[in-house]
Amino acid sequence: MGLHVVLYQPEIPANTGNIARTCAATNTSLHLIRPLGFSTEDRMLKRAGCDYWPKVNIQYYDDIEELLTQFSEAAFYFVETFGNSSFYHELDYSQLDKDYFFIFGRETTGLPESLIEKYPDRCVKIPQTDNVRSLNLSNTAAILVYEALRQQQFMPMQ
Amino acid sequence: MGLHVVLYQPEIPANTGNIARTCAATNTSLHLIRPLGFSTEDRMLKRAGCDYWPKVNIQYYDDIEELLTQFSEAAFYFVETFGNSSFYHELDYSQLDKDYFFIFGRETTGLPESLIEKYPDRCVKIPQTDNVRSLNLSNTAAILVYEALRQQQFMPMQ
Repeated sequence: MGLHVVLYQPEIPANTGNIARTCAATNTSLHLIRPLGFSTEDRMLKRAGCDYWPKVNIQYYDDIEELLTQFSEAAFYFVETFGNSSFYHELDYSQLDKDYFFIFGRETTGLPESLIEKYPDRCVKIPQTDNVRSLNLSNTAAILVYEALRQQQFMPMQ
Repeated sequence: MGLHVVLYQPEIPANTGNIARTCAATNTSLHLIRPLGFSTEDRMLKRAGCDYWPKVNIQYYDDIEELLTQFSEAAFYFVETFGNSSFYHELDYSQLDKDYFFIFGRETTGLPESLIEKYPDRCVKIPQTDNVRSLNLSNTAAILVYEALRQQQFMPMQ
């Protein structure tokens, strides 16, 4: 039970580092789908500012289906920028006895189309103007995690 | 009228760049209090990933009092990590005919103590566990801006 962030093949270590920091700050679990665009050796993480790595519950997968199968009872949300998705703030994440997974794609190419097509009713997006292609990945994750926490009255942090 | 982010002497260009991106994505104005820890020459911003700079309404100040005087009718919130501040999600940012300013301190040292002491009832914080010293600055700004937008039903973006 709780909140989970999934990063699908993340490319930029500073983003993953900032997301790990948000996870550490909120008791959120982090799930990383390989391949990663960076090394997770201690020395490399430290150089990339991933200081909070040891304080986060991190799990690794070779395939996203592995994770979806393992947590088949959970509520999954695939976060994307475009499309006919629901807006993140219109959904309910308030049940404390449930697992909520927020799944984010690669910085450059997003989530695989096949995944979006397979789960069209599980896609969410964040409102934004046409001025930008997308928000920064770590900012997007922070907005989602804190909206879920707000709805749960920040109980998972106690 | 609208939403505003103020960065007090920001040090790390990637953070300011990500915040400028969030501002561009949400029609939020950005106010920078000098000195900045980086150059705002086009070439330097581009190198730091600040691609969205030209799409943001940015204003510069030599002193924060200059800004506070100029917008004396606005609602100011000084965002800090510790202290007896209100929690960000318990405040009301819903009035569309009002200016809301979220003021963030330096990455390393935060806001000057003198400012916090002068405006104790204008300080806000984001709930977080003891696992981290703070959230990343750009993540904090994104959480605040999107909570205000959520309360305003994302009207400022239309």
